[in-house]
Amino acid sequence: MKSNHTPETLAFQDGKLSLIDQTKLPGELTTLVCETVDQAHDAIYRLVVRGAPAIGIAAAYGVCLARNANSSPSRQAYLQAADHLATSRPTAVNLFWALDRMKDVIEATKDDTQLPTALLNEAIAIHDEDRQMCKAMGRHGATLLNDCHAVLTHCNAGGLATSMWGTALAPIYHLHEQGHSIEVFADETRPLLQGARLTAWELAQAGVPVTVLTDSMAGSLLRSGKIGAVIVGADRVAANGDAANKIGTYPLAVLAKYHDVPFYVVAPSSTFDLKLASGDLIPIEQRPREEVSCPHGVTIVPEAADVLNPAFDVTPAELIAAIVTEKGIIENPNSASVHAMIGGPSQPTSYVG
Amino acid sequence: MKSNHTPETLAFQDGKLSLIDQTKLPGELTTLVCETVDQAHDAIYRLVVRGAPAIGIAAAYGVCLARNANSSPSRQAYLQAADHLATSRPTAVNLFWALDRMKDVIEATKDDTQLPTALLNEAIAIHDEDRQMCKAMGRHGATLLNDCHAVLTHCNAGGLATSMWGTALAPIYHLHEQGHSIEVFADETRPLLQGARLTAWELAQAGVPVTVLTDSMAGSLLRSGKIGAVIVGADRVAANGDAANKIGTYPLAVLAKYHDVPFYVVAPSSTFDLKLASGDLIPIEQRPREEVSCPHGVTIVPEAADVLNPAFDVTPAELIAAIVTEKGIIENPNSASVHAMIGGPSQPTSYVG
Repeated sequence: MKSNHTPETLAFQDGKLSLIDQTKLPGELTTLVCETVDQAHDAIYRLVVRGAPAIGIAAAYGVCLARNANSSPSRQAYLQAADHLATSRPTAVNLFWALDRMKDVIEATKDDTQLPTALLNEAIAIHDEDRQMCKAMGRHGATLLNDCHAVLTHCNAGGLATSMWGTALAPIYHLHEQGHSIEVFADETRPLLQGARLTAWELAQAGVPVTVLTDSMAGSLLRSGKIGAVIVGADRVAANGDAANKIGTYPLAVLAKYHDVPFYVVAPSSTFDLKLASGDLIPIEQRPREEVSCPHGVTIVPEAADVLNPAFDVTPAELIAAIVTEKGIIENPNSASVHAMIGGPSQPTSYVG
Repeated sequence: MKSNHTPETLAFQDGKLSLIDQTKLPGELTTLVCETVDQAHDAIYRLVVRGAPAIGIAAAYGVCLARNANSSPSRQAYLQAADHLATSRPTAVNLFWALDRMKDVIEATKDDTQLPTALLNEAIAIHDEDRQMCKAMGRHGATLLNDCHAVLTHCNAGGLATSMWGTALAPIYHLHEQGHSIEVFADETRPLLQGARLTAWELAQAGVPVTVLTDSMAGSLLRSGKIGAVIVGADRVAANGDAANKIGTYPLAVLAKYHDVPFYVVAPSSTFDLKLASGDLIPIEQRPREEVSCPHGVTIVPEAADVLNPAFDVTPAELIAAIVTEKGIIENPNSASVHAMIGGPSQPTSYVG
């Protein structure tokens, strides 16, 4: 078995929240330490930590930081902390889901002196559950990749987006840990380059061979026959299995189908939004022009030209060979197979950044 | 009829060669004036002028600049100028083709005192022929786009790559001049961003509505139903109609087929390489890592990761609805239809940059 050094995206120790500053990667690996609720709010707002599960966990620990302003914070101070953290990002639903869990604990804990311990335990539980989901998705997903020596992925659906192994990258880490030889081709993922900056960095850290390509190179790479599977995360999966993910995912699914390469989505059950019958109902966030027109402060698009910048696209279920969840694998996803695996409505999740 | 201000990519006046400095676009519109053969060599080498036809024309005028060092240059001085200019870029075959024409004139002109005029006339002829080819491709291509209100293009196959209207953009300029309402969606075209920097700039200059998108957004744009046709240039077309063009062209062709949108290639007959039976034989230039990993001097890919950077990909003829040439339109290109339109072997052409 190979050693497996996935990054510690976040950690809580001695009453402080440590975060890898993802805005500085890959140039600089620095840890930002948050001691106050405001600092945690700012870190989420500035995308120091991103990826819906990681944001949820960071916010849960963020509530615990209220204790650093006052060694015995009131019930009211904790509630204010939760409400303030909820304003840090608008789209990642895990943020609200995690904060709701923290508020439920505040309500359920009758003795104020018990609050610090009860809240820290809940944040640790959220963190632990996320680790377990990553490991389960890794285990299930690995069964699909046993004959596969190279996969193509898009954006960052790895350890930096969660507490541990990520979603799409979890099966890769699992196989790597088992000593299976597997390499990853990572789309750079314009406009924000999460593939080049984050996926390549964390895979290299873990010792997994990784090659970065521009998004435009995926077609000829798939045509070359080198790629055994395309594997991506998801931001929201509708009841019929249609999946929204980072812009550029849908064309990969079309290309995979054309080249007869299986296209897999990896997402925990909390990413399913069973209230939505199909992917056409998933709202697509439009992001600022400057992310496309002005990378690293250099203007590459003339003022007179318009710019598109949808953050996500939707891949219809018929292009998806299987959706891997922590509960198991949904092959050929459709309304019936999704319902059979996921059951009732669950909390919708949306990753941004 | 609308006015149509396409950029003057290059001009020769009072014995000097003026070039739009394409390395500075879109931030700055500056003209570089070359007075010596060395200056012209440097301008081609540094991609101040790029696109095979434009490079060929610039080199032809570059030979004429020998006169500025010596008012009556010897036959030998002109030949040396041509040989020196041939070392400026390795791939663009139009460079060698144009310089061979200039050398043929040197050989055919027996009276040395006639050389300056004979050579200038030949350079002007090469320039004029390119303009005529652009106009003819525009006229033919426009017949395919009459019902079309929006097209998608990739890289820069416009006026900045030729003397005038370009190849893929020629039908757009033709229709715009006729008062037909047409808008262009331009892939930014990583890694070197010719779509964002050059195509958007020249279309905006001409008053054609243009919208830039990252290459990864073309899939959802095509899915939206907005795009009537995809239209691109080519760097080399094989005898069976397979076409090499800027990396990212092939996935567009697959996406166009999947969405039932016609995919058109526009290229003059000089771009056909009839010695090559199929596109599999077209050599694909691999470019430096830094173009992908270090845009604008910012490192976005960790050192430990590998990088792919093929400059071109090949689109098989079966994905191409038609190839537009200055001689006419090759519908459903294959060996027979290409031979019928283009005839015998012609000079292969390769655009780089």
